[in-house]
Amino acid sequence: MELNEVIEMGILLEYYKPLLSEKQKEYLIKYFDKDLSFTEIAEENGITRQAVHDNIKRGIKILKTYEEKLGFYKKDRIIYKKLLNLRENFEKDNLEKIIEELN
Amino acid sequence: MELNEVIEMGILLEYYKPLLSEKQKEYLIKYFDKDLSFTEIAEENGITRQAVHDNIKRGIKILKTYEEKLGFYKKDRIIYKKLLNLRENFEKDNLEKIIEELN
Repeated sequence: MELNEVIEMGILLEYYKPLLSEKQKEYLIKYFDKDLSFTEIAEENGITRQAVHDNIKRGIKILKTYEEKLGFYKKDRIIYKKLLNLRENFEKDNLEKIIEELN
Repeated sequence: MELNEVIEMGILLEYYKPLLSEKQKEYLIKYFDKDLSFTEIAEENGITRQAVHDNIKRGIKILKTYEEKLGFYKKDRIIYKKLLNLRENFEKDNLEKIIEELN
């Protein structure tokens, strides 16, 4: 997995983890937030490395599906970028537009 | 159901409808977006008024549960209110804070 994908998964995990099962959440947090390896998670949880791999893979798919359906991360990114632009170049009309879009 | 609850459900439906089943989505859209009555939905869909009632009630519970778990509507409301304040009283520091929170 490439670094930017790892970062994105960490973010999607923050967004959608309340929708995961307890086990799924645990493996994904250990992998993406705590940077444990498959082997370390396997040892900690007393399961095989393959089982960790399968669970993480399934978890990634679930997170991506939630984002495809709901798109809250994408939506927040768009607002974030607009606010960055607003910071660089403040115009009241642009703030007005952002407010309208959020309402 | 009180008017403000109807409005809130319409909003939660916008947020979380991609997570509903097709049938559930259909009944809730007819009831909250198109303002059809239970009786009208029952006639359109060839089911009993009681079945419509039960479906809508279940749908409301699902929407509320998603919002309790994910809180995206609440989160957007908070940003929205901060932007309204910013509009009234522009201070670069406050814009900075909103940007930080979104990142």
